[in-house]
Amino acid sequence: MIAAAERRAGRDSPDFELAGRDHSVAALDRLSALLADDMQAVNRIIVDRMHSPVALIPQLAGYIVAAGGKRLRPLLTLAAADLCGYTGTRHHKLAAAVEFIHTATLLHDDVVDESERRRGQDSANTLFGNQASVLVGDFLFSRSFELMVEDGSLDVLRILSRASAVIAEGEVLQLATTNNLKTSESEYLAVVAAKTAALFAAACEIGAIVADRPAADAAALQQFGTSFGIAFQIVDDVLDYSAREAKLGKTVGDDFREGKMTLPVVYAISRGSEIERTFWRRTLEDLDQREGDLEHAVALIERHGGFGSALDLARTHGALALEALNSLPLRPMRGTLAALVEFCINREF
Amino acid sequence: MIAAAERRAGRDSPDFELAGRDHSVAALDRLSALLADDMQAVNRIIVDRMHSPVALIPQLAGYIVAAGGKRLRPLLTLAAADLCGYTGTRHHKLAAAVEFIHTATLLHDDVVDESERRRGQDSANTLFGNQASVLVGDFLFSRSFELMVEDGSLDVLRILSRASAVIAEGEVLQLATTNNLKTSESEYLAVVAAKTAALFAAACEIGAIVADRPAADAAALQQFGTSFGIAFQIVDDVLDYSAREAKLGKTVGDDFREGKMTLPVVYAISRGSEIERTFWRRTLEDLDQREGDLEHAVALIERHGGFGSALDLARTHGALALEALNSLPLRPMRGTLAALVEFCINREF
Repeated sequence: MIAAAERRAGRDSPDFELAGRDHSVAALDRLSALLADDMQAVNRIIVDRMHSPVALIPQLAGYIVAAGGKRLRPLLTLAAADLCGYTGTRHHKLAAAVEFIHTATLLHDDVVDESERRRGQDSANTLFGNQASVLVGDFLFSRSFELMVEDGSLDVLRILSRASAVIAEGEVLQLATTNNLKTSESEYLAVVAAKTAALFAAACEIGAIVADRPAADAAALQQFGTSFGIAFQIVDDVLDYSAREAKLGKTVGDDFREGKMTLPVVYAISRGSEIERTFWRRTLEDLDQREGDLEHAVALIERHGGFGSALDLARTHGALALEALNSLPLRPMRGTLAALVEFCINREF
Repeated sequence: MIAAAERRAGRDSPDFELAGRDHSVAALDRLSALLADDMQAVNRIIVDRMHSPVALIPQLAGYIVAAGGKRLRPLLTLAAADLCGYTGTRHHKLAAAVEFIHTATLLHDDVVDESERRRGQDSANTLFGNQASVLVGDFLFSRSFELMVEDGSLDVLRILSRASAVIAEGEVLQLATTNNLKTSESEYLAVVAAKTAALFAAACEIGAIVADRPAADAAALQQFGTSFGIAFQIVDDVLDYSAREAKLGKTVGDDFREGKMTLPVVYAISRGSEIERTFWRRTLEDLDQREGDLEHAVALIERHGGFGSALDLARTHGALALEALNSLPLRPMRGTLAALVEFCINREF
């Protein structure tokens, strides 16, 4: 991905490399394999706890949960707990709670974005209607707090209730930047830090809480999650213009069609001419889009090195994530998490 | 209201009376006055905690909170704590948390119902859009859990996270009954118990928790809230066909226009002829509604005693609420709450 984007952006090589690339491609698979038993326990809790006597709830929740996704956030909770030397089972319920929060935000996002596709298939709102998506999101959100209450840690409850509020703030902030050409790099980063990185950070931090580690470890994991989450979302936004559709499992060009002000576009606009600005105003502000506009947008972003600069910033945050890892215990999981960061930055889907 | 509905329903007198009516009309005002200092503290917390650096959040939340409403649910928490002899201030934050959950469900309800009016003015989704309403609802919901975490009682967190999940289940169940002529009285009651009574019950029960009362008192308050909530919602649904518009602050006929299967309609359909069924199918299932249909619906409900029977059932649940009160401490608040139940059943708005 980096190579392709840089070719497009007219750059020969990244400013720095995180680590060797070859062995990192399968990092997510390796993490999943390492934590397979734990993840099975988490999946059992997810299936068990999305149950409700109201049949539509498990139907709709099952649809979106079965659609898969990477289960990245619950994996982070499991991995963080492992890195902290935790050997119990409390983190299973909490990882399920994290995934429920994430699933609830996806359901509400799709209503907000009026998305028709999610993870390569019809989105839940397309199939079940906006009303059911809003309400089942509320159900999963409530259920996640029930799981936390059963665990009984007020620290975990504090961290995840705070993260949930920040996510909602980020989504509202994103509404305000959508279709707004004036959106700056720092406004974009504020959105990303809130809507994506807050849950990555919380998912990691609670690993230290269940392992009863000192505050410094919790803070380091929180920092790791924040930086990783920002890097992850930047790459996601680059891929929205350039991913191979089948692999990403989402329609390329969604952000463009919705007029979302993601980083490649923010750079292209700030570096572009007045004439180009007219194009962006028509397509992103007025959403008056025609055949060939997406291709022209990609060409403009490439002309101004928008993809390359975005990926540079992703790598900067990736490096911060690795730095945060350094203060944590030197267990095998540390290398696995480092490889995961690199993998997520280099992924093509 | 009862007198008017019974006149319409061709009934001379209710099956039983709860208590003298004269002094009960102002019960809600009296409760508000008794708890004015506490309620001021709650309102300060509500205003303070809906704050966010994302300006749209306090704007939208402030709009719906300022629109008023009766603040009935936080009042129940304050009243229950008072009845249990509690003299501290913990219940202020928890009452605010209860109101935030209620406000979040209102915001999401209006999106789900596509309502254009709420409490006599434009609904938030009309003014700010569905997207913002969904997300600010999520924010308030998260914020309510943050308030509970600050309080620190896992019992309270358990009660309110459970109630939130049940509310969502009730709303989804309601979706399944909407436009469905087959909806039975028991299905209607299941919806009402979940979407309305669960929060009434939780709001009351946590009053016993903060006062550190024995489980029997918590259970009695829970039962009081459940029965009161069911009675309250039944009356609300009767009023949707018959309230004086200005007083209720909502458009009469909303439920009819949306094809909601509320109790008066459930009775009218089950007692009606096949020809009448054709009318209900056209208006409530197909939502093919014409001038004069609402008036005809009211006439059919009256012909079959639908309002009277619904109010009878409300009174039955009101009596159960009073029965639950009897096992609780004999403080002045007990009489005030009894009067409140009667007031809510007899209200005309």
